[in-house]
Amino acid sequence: VEEVDWSLEAAEKGGFPHYMLKEIYEQPWVLENTLGGRLSEERGEAELGLELDPLSVDRVHLIACGTAAYAGWYGKYLLEGLAKLPADWEVASEYRYRDPVVDGRTLAVAISQSGETIDTLEALREARRKGARALGVVNAKGSSITREVEEVLYIHAGPEIGVASTKAYTAMLAAMALLALWFARARGVLPLEEARTLIREMKKLPRLVEEALEKRPIVAHIAEKYHQAQDFLFLGRHVQAPTAYEGALKLKEISYIHAEAYPAGEMKHGPIALIDEHLPVVVLATKGPLYEKTLSNIQEVRARGGKVIAIATEGDEEIRKLAQDVVYVPEVHPLLSPIVSVVPLQLLAYEVAVLLGRDVDQPRNLAKSVTVE
Amino acid sequence: VEEVDWSLEAAEKGGFPHYMLKEIYEQPWVLENTLGGRLSEERGEAELGLELDPLSVDRVHLIACGTAAYAGWYGKYLLEGLAKLPADWEVASEYRYRDPVVDGRTLAVAISQSGETIDTLEALREARRKGARALGVVNAKGSSITREVEEVLYIHAGPEIGVASTKAYTAMLAAMALLALWFARARGVLPLEEARTLIREMKKLPRLVEEALEKRPIVAHIAEKYHQAQDFLFLGRHVQAPTAYEGALKLKEISYIHAEAYPAGEMKHGPIALIDEHLPVVVLATKGPLYEKTLSNIQEVRARGGKVIAIATEGDEEIRKLAQDVVYVPEVHPLLSPIVSVVPLQLLAYEVAVLLGRDVDQPRNLAKSVTVE
Repeated sequence: VEEVDWSLEAAEKGGFPHYMLKEIYEQPWVLENTLGGRLSEERGEAELGLELDPLSVDRVHLIACGTAAYAGWYGKYLLEGLAKLPADWEVASEYRYRDPVVDGRTLAVAISQSGETIDTLEALREARRKGARALGVVNAKGSSITREVEEVLYIHAGPEIGVASTKAYTAMLAAMALLALWFARARGVLPLEEARTLIREMKKLPRLVEEALEKRPIVAHIAEKYHQAQDFLFLGRHVQAPTAYEGALKLKEISYIHAEAYPAGEMKHGPIALIDEHLPVVVLATKGPLYEKTLSNIQEVRARGGKVIAIATEGDEEIRKLAQDVVYVPEVHPLLSPIVSVVPLQLLAYEVAVLLGRDVDQPRNLAKSVTVE
Repeated sequence: VEEVDWSLEAAEKGGFPHYMLKEIYEQPWVLENTLGGRLSEERGEAELGLELDPLSVDRVHLIACGTAAYAGWYGKYLLEGLAKLPADWEVASEYRYRDPVVDGRTLAVAISQSGETIDTLEALREARRKGARALGVVNAKGSSITREVEEVLYIHAGPEIGVASTKAYTAMLAAMALLALWFARARGVLPLEEARTLIREMKKLPRLVEEALEKRPIVAHIAEKYHQAQDFLFLGRHVQAPTAYEGALKLKEISYIHAEAYPAGEMKHGPIALIDEHLPVVVLATKGPLYEKTLSNIQEVRARGGKVIAIATEGDEEIRKLAQDVVYVPEVHPLLSPIVSVVPLQLLAYEVAVLLGRDVDQPRNLAKSVTVE
């Protein structure tokens, strides 16, 4: 693992109008840092330097707040799907007060960019009091969380200044993929060839995110079209459900538009009542096992007059016939698609906020690191 | 357990302008039915007539859609809190496709009013294919889910005609409390006296819900004040987090207002950016261990100009100084407070929808029972 030099200079805007935009553009470099030196394609393994015995863990609790909590949700899907390890995710402010069931074979994974998020820190302490092992997935070196865990998996995203997290999120997702791969191989449930395929795809991520960044003009055009909307809905399934939530959270945080996300399959159980011609609906519709199901959801939105902005896989011509607007992202392993797909959602939030004249780097009411309850 | 006569006559509106309102008012009677004959105060036990060996279960998966999923969330808190049994809740459309980790010591609990919800049925089948035991928490006798589970815990709510579920929700919450009590006692983790206290409180629920219904004029006044709002935010902690989500869902379903809920502790991590004088915020602030934390959340909303509608415990004078509007509900055991507190939220959704001229019993785009994906 390369050491990253967090000089003050590195924290400057480097020609970008806002820290947030600079940080969005840093993501290819950040992913190199998060993944670099940690993947052995030959052995099909993630080399994380952890002393934890992976076979001593029966259950994982992923605990975090805000954006980091959505990384935890993604981590749950990967830990269960790839490593067959029971995993739950939960927002820390709920976890810490509800007397969760925890034992010595539970691994508490605390995810926090700053490592100082008070609810996450207290939830971690609660889990440890109950006997849990503890791992921190953290950006800031030497922060409080890193001092209270047995093991740290640093995300190596460099300093993040924009209040709305972007590069720390994609780095957290990459860290979740590393952790799931590490457990999966140690538990003997992921065949070597599948692990190698996944690793090859992980290694492509910096380049694919670079390509996704090139879509900014299309995203800017969509922002121009919809920035006056009062409300947005974001939909996705499986690993793209947390992507939808993160996309909605970004828009909410910096544009103050009321954006809400739902797992796409839940649309019929409530939010479909909201759909009319005034509600833009962003749908994560990249290729994967649930692609056809997602197309049905798009058709249901269209049948009720909704406007659809689809995030789709490069080369998908079918989706053009269904969605009013499409942002294409490069193809990648479906389990890794959130890392690429969230990029246009970050750009959409940014462009909308700029058009609305918001203070992108210092949105109202929000703090970068929530160190009080 | 008394058999309920589901005659056509019972399904008529009985003098109420809408089925939904009739069903809201049936809740005291429904709770008598759900709980009646199932509680032994002397032995401190729930008598559910289940053949399942409670000690054969290591983990519970609560699977449902929409309103029923929030009952599952409440069930998770009670199963972990009272019975020390690891429990997860998940929306069925996610669960069925994500290859969850399940074994023969997992109990899949499928919650559905109709017993025909397709995603819930398919998620149940997925869990069973993987070896799970299965329990249905269902209203409609002889429905598909009841035929595919080993055990059924009927909620005995009688026919529900209004598309937006009300009485089935409170009956599902009561069923979750019964199930948690049953496991807690069988696992030997809930002392007899605590169980008796809980049972005495459960037996009060029909009367307390009756008292909550008497608050309709106050709720109608609040609806008058805020029915033109474009958006609403609902906040709650611990067992009142699912109550907040259900309150937001009701409003969304029948008024088409964009209402969203958050666990109150997550407010600082995003939704606080939305708060201004145009956003009414409904806060579940009943007495319980997190009461003081919830008051802080209310102060944060007020500091940013937000309008607060508090659902609070009868006799709480402090909250009047903080919230613009207060609906008092009778005091009950904090773990049971959602069953009483959701009533004013159902009435709020109803009154707002009527003021806006919506078709309360048949809201646009929604079906009572979602039997296609």
